[in-house]
Amino acid sequence: MSKVGIIMGSISDMPVMENAIEVLQGFDIEVEVDIVSAHRTPEKLFDYAKNAHTRGIQVIIAGAGGAAHLPGMVASLSPLPIIGVPVKSRNSIDGWDSVLSILQMPGGVPVATVALDGALNAGILAAQIIGAGDKCVLDKIIMYKEGLKQKVIEGAKQIKK
Amino acid sequence: MSKVGIIMGSISDMPVMENAIEVLQGFDIEVEVDIVSAHRTPEKLFDYAKNAHTRGIQVIIAGAGGAAHLPGMVASLSPLPIIGVPVKSRNSIDGWDSVLSILQMPGGVPVATVALDGALNAGILAAQIIGAGDKCVLDKIIMYKEGLKQKVIEGAKQIKK
Amino acid sequence: MSKVGIIMGSISDMPVMENAIEVLQGFDIEVEVDIVSAHRTPEKLFDYAKNAHTRGIQVIIAGAGGAAHLPGMVASLSPLPIIGVPVKSRNSIDGWDSVLSILQMPGGVPVATVALDGALNAGILAAQIIGAGDKCVLDKIIMYKEGLKQKVIEGAKQIKK
Amino acid sequence: MSKVGIIMGSISDMPVMENAIEVLQGFDIEVEVDIVSAHRTPEKLFDYAKNAHTRGIQVIIAGAGGAAHLPGMVASLSPLPIIGVPVKSRNSIDGWDSVLSILQMPGGVPVATVALDGALNAGILAAQIIGAGDKCVLDKIIMYKEGLKQKVIEGAKQIKK
Amino acid sequence: MSKVGIIMGSISDMPVMENAIEVLQGFDIEVEVDIVSAHRTPEKLFDYAKNAHTRGIQVIIAGAGGAAHLPGMVASLSPLPIIGVPVKSRNSIDGWDSVLSILQMPGGVPVATVALDGALNAGILAAQIIGAGDKCVLDKIIMYKEGLKQKVIEGAKQIKK
Amino acid sequence: MSKVGIIMGSISDMPVMENAIEVLQGFDIEVEVDIVSAHRTPEKLFDYAKNAHTRGIQVIIAGAGGAAHLPGMVASLSPLPIIGVPVKSRNSIDGWDSVLSILQMPGGVPVATVALDGALNAGILAAQIIGAGDKCVLDKIIMYKEGLKQKVIEGAKQIKK
Amino acid sequence: MSKVGIIMGSISDMPVMENAIEVLQGFDIEVEVDIVSAHRTPEKLFDYAKNAHTRGIQVIIAGAGGAAHLPGMVASLSPLPIIGVPVKSRNSIDGWDSVLSILQMPGGVPVATVALDGALNAGILAAQIIGAGDKCVLDKIIMYKEGLKQKVIEGAKQIKK
Amino acid sequence: MSKVGIIMGSISDMPVMENAIEVLQGFDIEVEVDIVSAHRTPEKLFDYAKNAHTRGIQVIIAGAGGAAHLPGMVASLSPLPIIGVPVKSRNSIDGWDSVLSILQMPGGVPVATVALDGALNAGILAAQIIGAGDKCVLDKIIMYKEGLKQKVIEGAKQIKK
Repeated sequence: MSKVGIIMGSISDMPVMENAIEVLQGFDIEVEVDIVSAHRTPEKLFDYAKNAHTRGIQVIIAGAGGAAHLPGMVASLSPLPIIGVPVKSRNSIDGWDSVLSILQMPGGVPVATVALDGALNAGILAAQIIGAGDKCVLDKIIMYKEGLKQKVIEGAKQIKK
Repeated sequence: MSKVGIIMGSISDMPVMENAIEVLQGFDIEVEVDIVSAHRTPEKLFDYAKNAHTRGIQVIIAGAGGAAHLPGMVASLSPLPIIGVPVKSRNSIDGWDSVLSILQMPGGVPVATVALDGALNAGILAAQIIGAGDKCVLDKIIMYKEGLKQKVIEGAKQIKK
Repeated sequence: MSKVGIIMGSISDMPVMENAIEVLQGFDIEVEVDIVSAHRTPEKLFDYAKNAHTRGIQVIIAGAGGAAHLPGMVASLSPLPIIGVPVKSRNSIDGWDSVLSILQMPGGVPVATVALDGALNAGILAAQIIGAGDKCVLDKIIMYKEGLKQKVIEGAKQIKK
Repeated sequence: MSKVGIIMGSISDMPVMENAIEVLQGFDIEVEVDIVSAHRTPEKLFDYAKNAHTRGIQVIIAGAGGAAHLPGMVASLSPLPIIGVPVKSRNSIDGWDSVLSILQMPGGVPVATVALDGALNAGILAAQIIGAGDKCVLDKIIMYKEGLKQKVIEGAKQIKK
Repeated sequence: MSKVGIIMGSISDMPVMENAIEVLQGFDIEVEVDIVSAHRTPEKLFDYAKNAHTRGIQVIIAGAGGAAHLPGMVASLSPLPIIGVPVKSRNSIDGWDSVLSILQMPGGVPVATVALDGALNAGILAAQIIGAGDKCVLDKIIMYKEGLKQKVIEGAKQIKK
Repeated sequence: MSKVGIIMGSISDMPVMENAIEVLQGFDIEVEVDIVSAHRTPEKLFDYAKNAHTRGIQVIIAGAGGAAHLPGMVASLSPLPIIGVPVKSRNSIDGWDSVLSILQMPGGVPVATVALDGALNAGILAAQIIGAGDKCVLDKIIMYKEGLKQKVIEGAKQIKK
Repeated sequence: MSKVGIIMGSISDMPVMENAIEVLQGFDIEVEVDIVSAHRTPEKLFDYAKNAHTRGIQVIIAGAGGAAHLPGMVASLSPLPIIGVPVKSRNSIDGWDSVLSILQMPGGVPVATVALDGALNAGILAAQIIGAGDKCVLDKIIMYKEGLKQKVIEGAKQIKK
Repeated sequence: MSKVGIIMGSISDMPVMENAIEVLQGFDIEVEVDIVSAHRTPEKLFDYAKNAHTRGIQVIIAGAGGAAHLPGMVASLSPLPIIGVPVKSRNSIDGWDSVLSILQMPGGVPVATVALDGALNAGILAAQIIGAGDKCVLDKIIMYKEGLKQKVIEGAKQIKK
């Protein structure tokens, strides 16, 4: 069965990151949530990232703010696809620090970066990654997108009145 | 067998995008390359994005510069994981336009964004996505990363002399 | 009779976009309002943009936030002049993402971009475009600008007291 | 017959602005080119902008760099649709100054802004504005866009070999 | 006797601009305040700027927000020293638009730019300009600066307790 | 007789700063040029700034790059009007550092900031400041501006051919 | 015994700067706090910076906002290591002015810059600097970091429930 | 005896980083240089950072470009003062990525950041940190600064001729 690891640098990132948890649960994909701080618990980061793929995790979502090193360091240590969520933390310079320190990874060590505070999209992307090899999840993605479309069409109807 | 679709908005993006092609070929992953312009060939974009998953493509890499709509529009039309490569084109405002118009996708429609001109990382990420469901590719990723490490260690030795 | 199409990516853009509606109605120009999301209803976008000019629409105003692809994709599919309104949506990086993903269109596919949240100006510009070929509307523009002047002169009088 | 006025702040803007001239001539639209500097010839700016619409001009394209006040001041004085081209001049701060001082016009006085150095698109947009009221020009736009598409398809063929 | 002209693009700039008025009145320098909008009352702008120096005004302070053309256009039309105050108006992109469209004037037409919303400093600078040729005003500047120093020293004493 | 002090942080700023020297000499205004580094010769900075007004200097132009503290520190120590020229030095982050560290002075201590590398305008502004109290210099400014206008009109003539 | 000097440009910086005071007191390191404004009390700045090292101070922490010249000017006058804290003051342009005017010091005169409003980190860094030559303080740093780790681990436990 | 560790993410950072080496050797401070990549050799990073203080190193200078995690991760693992040098690498977005991902560290884990490509200042800062506890090094710093002053004074003499 598929499993997605979701980690964040601080419990204060939870209000953003829970959007990833919920959307994955809606796709019936197992999630494992933890707090791993690159700067405060570097040993835990090492253990987590080195072993995630041996514990059945297929994708890791890592959210962090400011000088956000968590996604990139996990990408450094794990062979799995890593999705980075830049979080607009307090004292961030309008989110630019999180975005650039996650996005601009050097050649060889990618992080799949989503929009600022874009944890919902991180969850969907994780499902798409699993869906790339799992027809059943792919079909759920197709239905999810159909749902998005219907909501816009409803909105359009309201406006016409 | 796994297949990655690589598209770009213009033939002028090729010098950047061929880094993705080469690294994927190095992993023995089949690539299918095409030019698809969101703004000049929108019908081709539609056909490509709607059908890619039915033709056996598992991941799409889309590179574009300036107001770069190709990755996001493919993400709108395809259930597959889409990797976006912001290309620093001529007349770009230092690359900020490509980065932001690929990264900042709305909730529901993710694009896995890599660094500016980061096509090499897009290729590796595509391999990691396939590797999430294919042990053999995962092992190649592990070996690739081992190779990166050895190159740094060589460099370190040189400096010590 | 002249007609302007006004579309927006989401119903949440309405508080900004209604400034365009109101100013055009003040010029007695017919407006047709709809919700069209580039990322959630791409087929509707296609139909809308391909056919607008055949339904008597002369100008299209498209508002969107974040990675704002709606104006550019409509411009890709329609021969009409397209006016883009960058909307400062929630989670936007201070509006830069909307501005750059609308403004920085590649050669061949222009979008007439107005200021961030500048829907009022989009409406006036649409009227000016119609006025370029319609003396009656041109005269209304001249009167509208005269009104702006009078308001400033009133303000100046108040200050003098 | 249709006529587009093209002005620029300095003769050094000509290498950028001539893309607008050429594309309009390709559409058989008459162009009238002049140098009008907001900061060095303000009286000429006044005369030009106040009278352009009485001389049969339907659209004005204004290009300028740095603190680029030409497009906005023409928009202040003329009822015509004004297209602004931000030019990346020497000493410009990466073009941001031209872009923002043209784009961010106050409510009531729009400037239709195109991409940095985007004079080609300014020319096309001017043609589209004329085409909004002139079926013959509209058809030329449709053919022009068809030409863009063919060039991309040629490029795509080359890549396939 | 010395006189400073203070103008602003809109009455909404008054809460910022009154800091300039007050500090100049504190220096017993006559001020003449008016609303002059570059974009809504361009004729008034022309009259004002062309004649200010013939009416005994020695320095002009001009405040404006967004695409702020007022200071630069006054500088274009007047031989006097012009001080520009970038105002952070509603819909401004964090003030960058006002700052850059006032600061980045082309060679030949300077605007003495102060900090964002820095009308207090504009007033002091105007006094310093008058003081450059008027020993009595210069002495008041020296005393004003002495006052600033005393306030900091008071603050420092409080902290020591 | 009038005198302008021109200082710069490093001899490498000279190619930019000599534009100020030349334009002032063209106005027959005496200039006194020196190298004063805020960070390397702080005592010289103190002596210079504290005494300039007692030596007959009426305006000071200070140019510096990077974290450019020279103009602001001179403004802190002198009652004269200080003009700051942000210089785009090597290792500068596109000039933003010089611009912001000169422009964003706190309330009470203005620096009259000109465009990036805008030493020519600094010279003209210094002349205008002197002209505010000296009719003869004011007339030279009027003639200088007339010259600018003629050059643009010449350029316009050339284009017409 | 070790001593750290903490200065700030204005009493309004205290809410940020007291984080440095508290953390140093927690390490039993003596702190001496003062208000020193580069722009309002330049003489005090000179005295302070020239003599701090002769009064037993080993490290100076200087906080300032806007065009923040205090840290750099202290660095110019003192041989001690200077830590700069960019403070996001009112009227700051999102903090960029403080950050760049502290960080981008010229070759020869370093300022050890910490994050925007990062006074806590300035305090810890000062302790680390003292700890570089004082085993007892180094051990306290090690314990402090252990404490950070425990707090994250506590947070992680809570989430697991 | 004092020792400074200098590490960098890639051998391509050497042209920048050797300025730190040279200036420290000029102060007769021992340096130990190595290549340690956060993303390619994370285990080496761990070993290096955890043990540096036990091997007699007192300060670590870490240089890196792009999403620059090396300085912050070393700071996470070592109790020593860490100096970060943002390097403007190829594909960097004008250096902003390196600057922000080094500077904006979270509370508890400081990195003493210097200017973009500011390795010379990193070396001087390291010497100042050692000098905080070593009178002999402090005296060398004082002499070094005296040398900087003399060079400026020489430059000033040249200009006077």
